[in-house]
Amino acid sequence: MSAQDDNELLTRVGPGTPMGDTLRQYWVPALLRSELPERDGPAIRVRLLGEDLIAFRDSAGRVGMLGDHCPHRGASLFFGRNEEGGLRCVYHGWKYDVDGRCLDMPNEPPESNFRDKIRHRAYPCREAGGIIWAYMGTRTEPPPLPELEFMGVPDNQIMLQKRLQYCNWVQALEGDIDQSHVGFLHSRVADHGPFTAEEAASYDSMERYYKRIDRRPRYSMVDTEYGVMGCATRTAGGDAAYYRVTHFLMPFTTITPPGAEADPSRSIRSWVPMDDESVMVFGISYRPTRPFEEREYQRLKTGAGANWVGEDHFLPATSEPNGRWKPQASKANDYLRDPELQRTGPYTGIQEFWAQDAAMQESMGSIYDRSTEHLGTSDAFIIRTRRRLVDAAKALRDGGVVPPGVDEPEAYRVRSVQVVSPSDVPWMTATRDLIQVVPGTNPGGAALGLLRQV
Amino acid sequence: MSAQDDNELLTRVGPGTPMGDTLRQYWVPALLRSELPERDGPAIRVRLLGEDLIAFRDSAGRVGMLGDHCPHRGASLFFGRNEEGGLRCVYHGWKYDVDGRCLDMPNEPPESNFRDKIRHRAYPCREAGGIIWAYMGTRTEPPPLPELEFMGVPDNQIMLQKRLQYCNWVQALEGDIDQSHVGFLHSRVADHGPFTAEEAASYDSMERYYKRIDRRPRYSMVDTEYGVMGCATRTAGGDAAYYRVTHFLMPFTTITPPGAEADPSRSIRSWVPMDDESVMVFGISYRPTRPFEEREYQRLKTGAGANWVGEDHFLPATSEPNGRWKPQASKANDYLRDPELQRTGPYTGIQEFWAQDAAMQESMGSIYDRSTEHLGTSDAFIIRTRRRLVDAAKALRDGGVVPPGVDEPEAYRVRSVQVVSPSDVPWMTATRDLIQVVPGTNPGGAALGLLRQV
Amino acid sequence: MSAQDDNELLTRVGPGTPMGDTLRQYWVPALLRSELPERDGPAIRVRLLGEDLIAFRDSAGRVGMLGDHCPHRGASLFFGRNEEGGLRCVYHGWKYDVDGRCLDMPNEPPESNFRDKIRHRAYPCREAGGIIWAYMGTRTEPPPLPELEFMGVPDNQIMLQKRLQYCNWVQALEGDIDQSHVGFLHSRVADHGPFTAEEAASYDSMERYYKRIDRRPRYSMVDTEYGVMGCATRTAGGDAAYYRVTHFLMPFTTITPPGAEADPSRSIRSWVPMDDESVMVFGISYRPTRPFEEREYQRLKTGAGANWVGEDHFLPATSEPNGRWKPQASKANDYLRDPELQRTGPYTGIQEFWAQDAAMQESMGSIYDRSTEHLGTSDAFIIRTRRRLVDAAKALRDGGVVPPGVDEPEAYRVRSVQVVSPSDVPWMTATRDLIQVVPGTNPGGAALGLLRQV
Repeated sequence: MSAQDDNELLTRVGPGTPMGDTLRQYWVPALLRSELPERDGPAIRVRLLGEDLIAFRDSAGRVGMLGDHCPHRGASLFFGRNEEGGLRCVYHGWKYDVDGRCLDMPNEPPESNFRDKIRHRAYPCREAGGIIWAYMGTRTEPPPLPELEFMGVPDNQIMLQKRLQYCNWVQALEGDIDQSHVGFLHSRVADHGPFTAEEAASYDSMERYYKRIDRRPRYSMVDTEYGVMGCATRTAGGDAAYYRVTHFLMPFTTITPPGAEADPSRSIRSWVPMDDESVMVFGISYRPTRPFEEREYQRLKTGAGANWVGEDHFLPATSEPNGRWKPQASKANDYLRDPELQRTGPYTGIQEFWAQDAAMQESMGSIYDRSTEHLGTSDAFIIRTRRRLVDAAKALRDGGVVPPGVDEPEAYRVRSVQVVSPSDVPWMTATRDLIQVVPGTNPGGAALGLLRQV
Repeated sequence: MSAQDDNELLTRVGPGTPMGDTLRQYWVPALLRSELPERDGPAIRVRLLGEDLIAFRDSAGRVGMLGDHCPHRGASLFFGRNEEGGLRCVYHGWKYDVDGRCLDMPNEPPESNFRDKIRHRAYPCREAGGIIWAYMGTRTEPPPLPELEFMGVPDNQIMLQKRLQYCNWVQALEGDIDQSHVGFLHSRVADHGPFTAEEAASYDSMERYYKRIDRRPRYSMVDTEYGVMGCATRTAGGDAAYYRVTHFLMPFTTITPPGAEADPSRSIRSWVPMDDESVMVFGISYRPTRPFEEREYQRLKTGAGANWVGEDHFLPATSEPNGRWKPQASKANDYLRDPELQRTGPYTGIQEFWAQDAAMQESMGSIYDRSTEHLGTSDAFIIRTRRRLVDAAKALRDGGVVPPGVDEPEAYRVRSVQVVSPSDVPWMTATRDLIQVVPGTNPGGAALGLLRQV
Repeated sequence: MSAQDDNELLTRVGPGTPMGDTLRQYWVPALLRSELPERDGPAIRVRLLGEDLIAFRDSAGRVGMLGDHCPHRGASLFFGRNEEGGLRCVYHGWKYDVDGRCLDMPNEPPESNFRDKIRHRAYPCREAGGIIWAYMGTRTEPPPLPELEFMGVPDNQIMLQKRLQYCNWVQALEGDIDQSHVGFLHSRVADHGPFTAEEAASYDSMERYYKRIDRRPRYSMVDTEYGVMGCATRTAGGDAAYYRVTHFLMPFTTITPPGAEADPSRSIRSWVPMDDESVMVFGISYRPTRPFEEREYQRLKTGAGANWVGEDHFLPATSEPNGRWKPQASKANDYLRDPELQRTGPYTGIQEFWAQDAAMQESMGSIYDRSTEHLGTSDAFIIRTRRRLVDAAKALRDGGVVPPGVDEPEAYRVRSVQVVSPSDVPWMTATRDLIQVVPGTNPGGAALGLLRQV
């Protein structure tokens, strides 16, 4: 970053900050629908963009998202009674509906009209794709929800997970659009030894194979309506190129390529700031054309060979917001790194895939000071993404410009892809038909019919 | 509060703050006498009004209250040797008496008169009512102790307990003079169902009965020499009114009504600031006319049906000041709230009476920001109490005016009472004879001879 | 201290502070050699002078000390792979040698010369006396290592230990040059009772004996090339004096006298600031003329009668810098003080010798506020030491003057001693021949041939 000011602007998300105002223009993933399973069930704590909120599902099934503190005398509505169309503070019985209206004020004289003067902070919520989305912005009529592909498929074609990370959201997000780290951070020691033909034949993943071949991807990016699309190009042997197309979708979502097989499972992640120093990662896997089979579901859940940690990798739930999504592998235990294992197994000595990322992203500091970094050509996608975020925040702050994608929900209908192509076919040409969501279809990279070449 | 300035002035108690100076005009409950049981026993830590202090009982039985840090080179006197009329720092053997005089300086040359130049911070202490009181003000001759009724009865007529709370003292104090919360926070779910005649007959407490009848008390307050006296009036059926008279006694003491039976046990509480963000609650129960019977004592101690938690509700003692008075039910465990229980049992899902209050008062934030609140008519007593505190602090700061009650110890000879009265008899008339301490008497509310009416 | 400014200047050690700049002129003990035992072994965290560093031993056996954060995108090099002559960041594979040069940048295009532009923060390290020393200053060619006696003897004549203390380094250092505290803090209750001839005969230590006789030492100090030399003089009966000569060696090392027997074991300590609020104490015992015998080694290690706590006195290692050197006796447990024991055993009720010191030094506060202290004649050595430190920092800051001793390594060839002498022989005369390091000799205080007199 050229200036510390821009780093502040980029990273801070509290109410009234330029980036905070920008994020509040969008719908924000707040909770899994499964976290509020029943009508009139217990309220739960949510921390979003530096705000402490209380979420509940009312008698009619609507989700409410209220400010934590009762507007009367500030007690937490977390302890509230969720009953008959609203959440009732247990201190004096004041009751609020999902819109923040005060429905009852039973300790005040019946003739009082004080009740009508109370309007509690309440954010509209919608449910789609198994996620509860909140709109924390200023429009009376919220914008439409983004039309991400998974939001249009049935529930049994989606698998959702969450994970808490203790650092600023931007450095976490950056880690996910960074292509060149995969060949190191997520590699195994054996990946760096002599490359024999037998070993080459053993690779079961196109991605792992080409990242072994070429650890120095070249980047090319274009700005889009929804954010940034970028391609990491690697040599694929002979006159072939290996293209990986990744999306950054404003304001904090990433799409990385699925497997190369036909009809692959797809992944999206949202890096939602709880506040400036912690981020709630939503991991969304989905199948565009059919339900998950039980064994596929289990494979994702246990994390065996997959890119998400299973539920047994979390600490026991605490009463903190999102307390149940705290990973066991943490800064306090050096992410369960084993220096001995590091000699022969995972490059990091850390077993879990996402703990490898967390170790890097959290060790950068709570809020990474970008004035000390040295970016190379491999960081081009990151540079572009920061610029997109900073520009959007400044345009909103200085000119009231609506940020990219807010009012273009259909722009979010994109997919990522990995393909092997003749190197004289530009990546945008080679992938054009694969990056648009076409309902009922689901080509993998292998659809191009190109074989890998050693 | 009209302004943030007033909230700061109201809540901050450290040395040199306007409210801190005001509180220091009064005698402050510092310890239970039982915490310093023996002469020349171990010194203990005390935190009062933002100051770290060390208390000890010297060879003559006098209580000393010294600054934590030895004036020589700052080591803590907590580790000191309590011997032969003073507390001796173990670092270099300097020794102080209860007045802060340096009695011995055994590492300095015998000809030195340096010892005479040292005067350590020391606060005069007195013992009354089983409590050790400290005077932290500037007068050479402290004011008289307040003449609260319990301070004049024998020890076996008093039961004392303490409890630590992690919030500012004012919001805790406010919770105790707030009458309308009782009908909600401390109620049971059944109290809000249909009110049958059988159920009505089952009420064993006049207070619970009338709070069921009318959850919307009207308030009336008067300023007094000692602070504020207020009455919460409820409909008692027909042309009867149910009056509850409560006192706020400067600077942080409350008296709420005893039971309605004849010769009731009485209660006083002091909400003593340890610092801006923690408060030591002194709970005082006493019997004006006779000793506690063992079963009464046990009932108070175990908290069965009583308004104080038993000793087994505290966490193991730590070396912190007042560490042994930390409640088990705390913010970290959501006050042991059980959402399932909340459907049918306590209105809050929290079993312990005082944990219900703590959940509210602590969840308001460490120091409650009063600029966001919305006070109703039910908060009239709280508004008046704040005003009394703020006015006293400003009058002292700006004009050197001695705060209310400091030099009127006999003003503190008051009682609280609950009565049912014909509604055309004003509450002050109906309760006049009952709110003054008359030694040898102890009428309950039932003394009025009015029967409750459904 | 005359002014708060001087206290700030004295205590703060971060980069850019006057004292921080001063300390960085010297070689700083950073690690025990045994903490980096093997080539290409795991890197470890070091915190020095407020900086987070990563130390490793490379393939050639050289020790590297790098800034924690990779200059690329800030990930911690703690997780790095130590291989083939450098430490490789696991995020993107950038690799650094002990001089901070970037040896490899495997995720960038081969034609890039970006690698040559990266130079990571790296501090030169040397090994001597079993300790890894770091030079954190600005000279291209570091100054010579100080020639402390132990740095010239074989490894089997040295025993090293470390201990972490949670307070500012200056108040810890002051505790070690403070002679008069020993007769109190480290005494036993029996030392303060009636002094019988039998008891006198029972003293097995000249030091303990004379400190019993006279608890009020008089001080005399001289400034030296390396810092300050001071003598604490006590009455030794008749016309004899007991002299103890102690050194403060810039910037944070102390030498106190060995036992009085012939050929004694000697001790040096360095009070190395990890940051402003924690200090790593290096305890060095050595024998100038012969190896430690196993039983001597065990005696020092278990702390029986010795002045260092054994390894079983430490908490389990954590991943913090120096986490394995945290003493069990800590502020959180009141240093395992037993008030009952304090009546008859150790004067403090604390069993461990160094825990007695830590209790005092840590209870002074994280950074002791010297504006509240009252120094006596017994604090003369402390006053002089502070002055030496503050003057050096101001001279460097204001005039660029190299601090004392930096370029005079041979000035550090000094010993401490305790002697009994005719009182008309000045201490400098009586000890002159004993305070200079003479290789091959090792006289104790008893070498003077003076018998102790009761």
